[in-house]
Amino acid sequence: MDPTRLMLRLYFGPVMFGPGKADLLEAIAAEGSISAAGRRMGMSYKRAWSLVEAMNAGFVEPLVDSARGGAHGGGAHLTAAGETVLAQYRALEARLREAGATEIATIGALVKPDVSG
Amino acid sequence: MDPTRLMLRLYFGPVMFGPGKADLLEAIAAEGSISAAGRRMGMSYKRAWSLVEAMNAGFVEPLVDSARGGAHGGGAHLTAAGETVLAQYRALEARLREAGATEIATIGALVKPDVSG
Repeated sequence: MDPTRLMLRLYFGPVMFGPGKADLLEAIAAEGSISAAGRRMGMSYKRAWSLVEAMNAGFVEPLVDSARGGAHGGGAHLTAAGETVLAQYRALEARLREAGATEIATIGALVKPDVSG
Repeated sequence: MDPTRLMLRLYFGPVMFGPGKADLLEAIAAEGSISAAGRRMGMSYKRAWSLVEAMNAGFVEPLVDSARGGAHGGGAHLTAAGETVLAQYRALEARLREAGATEIATIGALVKPDVSG
């Protein structure tokens, strides 16, 4: 059975980067706004901001540049560092699927087929 | 900054395999008992059994063979399938570090050094 999903989290001391933050960065890049990105992901405004603040605090440069304020909030976009982290994380996921194809297939062959679907 | 930990979870439909289950399989192989393995991991007996039951139900063959019963519980060991899944999962983690070294280092170089330690 093919894995439907690989979930990869990187821990650098207290700083974690994983699929939720990567998806949020992608949504911010697409929406141009943290609140719109949060809505797209079914996440509260508070939660989206809190993830952005954690990312901005954990890296040497902020990953997201935002102008907070105004009735609908200011715009937001990824910084160069944000684009790099996101691109490298996606590349890492692809490398895992590629370099680990044999191991993933061997484990998958032992998984009981899903008869519920 | 080097990642202190990479956490990798594989989802095959409803079946998940990740670091907690891999560590439990290793502890069972070392201890020869599910309850001793659970204690070693600071996990309740109930939790350890529930993880073993989930693994045994999710794969075409059980991953753990156990003789439940007796005052101290029966012994337990990994089946051939259990040994294969564990070994392939550890190999996959190693491949990820190896094949993804550049991406991991690029992200790590952007992480703020941990000044708390």
